[in-house]
Amino acid sequence: MATLENVLSTIDANQGEALDRLFALVSIPSVSALPENFPDCDQAADWLVAELKSLGFEASKVETAGRPMVVGSAKAKTRDAPNVLFYGHYDVQPADPLSLWKTPPFEPRLESGPNGERIVGRGAADDKGQLMTFVEACRAFRANGGLPCNVNILFEGEEETGSPSLPAFLASHGKAIKSDLLLVCDTSMWDAKTPAVTTMLRGLVMEEVIIHAANRDLHSGMYGGAAINPIRVLTRVLADLFDANGAVTLPGFFDGVEELPEEVAEQWRNLDFDAGAFLGEVGLSVPAGEKGRSALEMIWSRPTCDVNGIVGGYTGEGAKTVLPAKASAKVSFRLVGKQNPDRIAQSFRAHVKQRLPADVKAEFRAMGGSPAFALPMRGEALRRACRALEAEWGKPAVLVGAGGSIPIVGAFKRELGMDALMVGFGLDDDAIHSPNEKYERNSFHKGARSWARILAALAQ
Amino acid sequence: MATLENVLSTIDANQGEALDRLFALVSIPSVSALPENFPDCDQAADWLVAELKSLGFEASKVETAGRPMVVGSAKAKTRDAPNVLFYGHYDVQPADPLSLWKTPPFEPRLESGPNGERIVGRGAADDKGQLMTFVEACRAFRANGGLPCNVNILFEGEEETGSPSLPAFLASHGKAIKSDLLLVCDTSMWDAKTPAVTTMLRGLVMEEVIIHAANRDLHSGMYGGAAINPIRVLTRVLADLFDANGAVTLPGFFDGVEELPEEVAEQWRNLDFDAGAFLGEVGLSVPAGEKGRSALEMIWSRPTCDVNGIVGGYTGEGAKTVLPAKASAKVSFRLVGKQNPDRIAQSFRAHVKQRLPADVKAEFRAMGGSPAFALPMRGEALRRACRALEAEWGKPAVLVGAGGSIPIVGAFKRELGMDALMVGFGLDDDAIHSPNEKYERNSFHKGARSWARILAALAQ
Repeated sequence: MATLENVLSTIDANQGEALDRLFALVSIPSVSALPENFPDCDQAADWLVAELKSLGFEASKVETAGRPMVVGSAKAKTRDAPNVLFYGHYDVQPADPLSLWKTPPFEPRLESGPNGERIVGRGAADDKGQLMTFVEACRAFRANGGLPCNVNILFEGEEETGSPSLPAFLASHGKAIKSDLLLVCDTSMWDAKTPAVTTMLRGLVMEEVIIHAANRDLHSGMYGGAAINPIRVLTRVLADLFDANGAVTLPGFFDGVEELPEEVAEQWRNLDFDAGAFLGEVGLSVPAGEKGRSALEMIWSRPTCDVNGIVGGYTGEGAKTVLPAKASAKVSFRLVGKQNPDRIAQSFRAHVKQRLPADVKAEFRAMGGSPAFALPMRGEALRRACRALEAEWGKPAVLVGAGGSIPIVGAFKRELGMDALMVGFGLDDDAIHSPNEKYERNSFHKGARSWARILAALAQ
Repeated sequence: MATLENVLSTIDANQGEALDRLFALVSIPSVSALPENFPDCDQAADWLVAELKSLGFEASKVETAGRPMVVGSAKAKTRDAPNVLFYGHYDVQPADPLSLWKTPPFEPRLESGPNGERIVGRGAADDKGQLMTFVEACRAFRANGGLPCNVNILFEGEEETGSPSLPAFLASHGKAIKSDLLLVCDTSMWDAKTPAVTTMLRGLVMEEVIIHAANRDLHSGMYGGAAINPIRVLTRVLADLFDANGAVTLPGFFDGVEELPEEVAEQWRNLDFDAGAFLGEVGLSVPAGEKGRSALEMIWSRPTCDVNGIVGGYTGEGAKTVLPAKASAKVSFRLVGKQNPDRIAQSFRAHVKQRLPADVKAEFRAMGGSPAFALPMRGEALRRACRALEAEWGKPAVLVGAGGSIPIVGAFKRELGMDALMVGFGLDDDAIHSPNEKYERNSFHKGARSWARILAALAQ
């Protein structure tokens, strides 16, 4: 029976052909945002179906209201093997502005860079290069006796346009692909030499509040002083959301927020994360969140509140002495741990209502909410994946968070109850969504080796 | 020598002709905002020049960069008589929307109403009817031996468009018309039976503040928590402008704010001002200013702060998780007494700067300021005017404030150092600036009688 070493050797021996295959996929301009590229999306899906079939997968293209899904499945070589579902997306961002590309975006090429050769082209990283790391790992297992896990695959064609067809697809086809664990390859390494597993994604609650006062705009000379100003009420309500230490004041807000496990906290402390550089790139210098928390905690593991928009009264050039009838704000909360989106929305509304003086009404509009996602830090899958990644890269994997939500992970959790193991090999300078997108050849090669090790580890 | 009684009898005997003259003036569509009516503005000015000449005034039309001024002067019948300058404006608001007028706006007519006959037409009250009360008083003196005061007259043609040419005119021609006292007839009575003198006009300071944070808009998922949000800073700054009792917190803000003289305070307490009705008309019910102050104090004699506009981040439909680079607000302060506009602007800026966290800058834009105006409450001119009004109306005149500034009063104070005695005979339901504007025939008739009494009283 083939060993993992044989599988890794196969990957090493077939790098050239693997690169040819990735180039073939990147050459297809499968831009999901542009109707003129819809046929190309179909072509990319067909290409992937053929690819999976050549690896012994049962595979097919499944139509949706939008771009088709690619679905595949292959049995493990042994019984009682674990079941995994791998997710990737074959659609890419538009290539605009074309003039900023050094070479045509859909004519992939190699160029040399500080970390060795890199693959340049739209989708080279996001997500074609990343998803092909998993396909190449499967290919190497097939050449060495078969897969160690039962593998389902789902390649989506609308990730870059917000995955509009995914929830309905999971509702109708989910049972067939539901597995023990979701594997996602759409995230980044810590740096070029350090692998990472994204174990935390913050959730989100968004509320709009509209403060209504007089039944029409008033003249501040005639009414100013006697008539309540809704902007004054709104600014008080919003200012009161934070205490002097920058923590959110809503009652119950921190229910379900847990401290990091000490080993993760220590890992984060030891990371050479340069908060000054992170903030300096956007013209800032001082982490502005809760006092006593590091910048990484502020963006990964601590909940936040931000006013994303506010408007009221006269906002044009010059002055107008208006006392407006209403003022409104869009407020969002980033959630962590087990914070409950509904309860936080309720707590926000109660906070507002408690601060309304006479004659003032608040109107609320819910604009969506989703809980945070966290992979159990001490779970078996995570431990095995970390061991596999350390073996490949020679350094422990960093358990990172992501400040924003990744909608598809929420969809799998909600529709199928599945946790996600997010391992990706992108780098911060890959320029995904930008001109001259690239993927390190090292990411592509060692990414495939990493997946081979992870699949083997999950099956042990 | 003719007595005041003779003068008043002349006014009474000539009501029909006086009404014909007012109708002739109202018939001229002297809308200063509309270029097609500029010739009509000239015609109204010419009409007034001829009118004044027929009363023995030296009168002329003086060109400006905009509509012309009408300037007139006539000597008193005695030497050592006081010098007064009467101000009015011959321009009117546009008549739109025409469809809401019951009869054409520039075809004046009489109709009956709850207070007797009323004169309907654009400008019937504002300000043609009001200024003609003074002209008719002068006419009656001329028929009875001459004026008791040296009278200068200035009729402006751009009041409804913000008096753009007035400051320059006062600077160049002010010496010729500068007098002991400015008389203005462009305000209202307390009610249909109670005369009023407007002795207080609030001043105004307007500032725009722009809070700058990151050098570009950020994604709140990636940066939320670590990057300072300028809306959060702005809402804190603005909320802190008020204490729990609704008073403005700026250091030194109340310097120069004086309590009302007790006799005025008592008069206001005894007025049948219905704060509930005043606020109820715009959908409110509770005076929202400083605790312990009456609604009249809030709008007339107490300083205020209002945020007239605020904007930052995403304000369109739906949600956008943006963490904006900047947020801004337009803030105005209504001033009373001797509050210093410059010092208050400085105090506001200091208040903002003290509340700026790291990485945040505030940009300020001054948008104008003027001190409050107050006629000395115990001055001789006011006492004489009040005596004259009480003699005419059989009730003491109410000394009222006005929440808004009246720019021309500030211009005369600033350019010529003149105080203004503001006596008008409008009523709250005159619908000035609206369709079906009217002026009570009683206001027109007793207004002329009032000015006759005031001129006589000032000359005693």
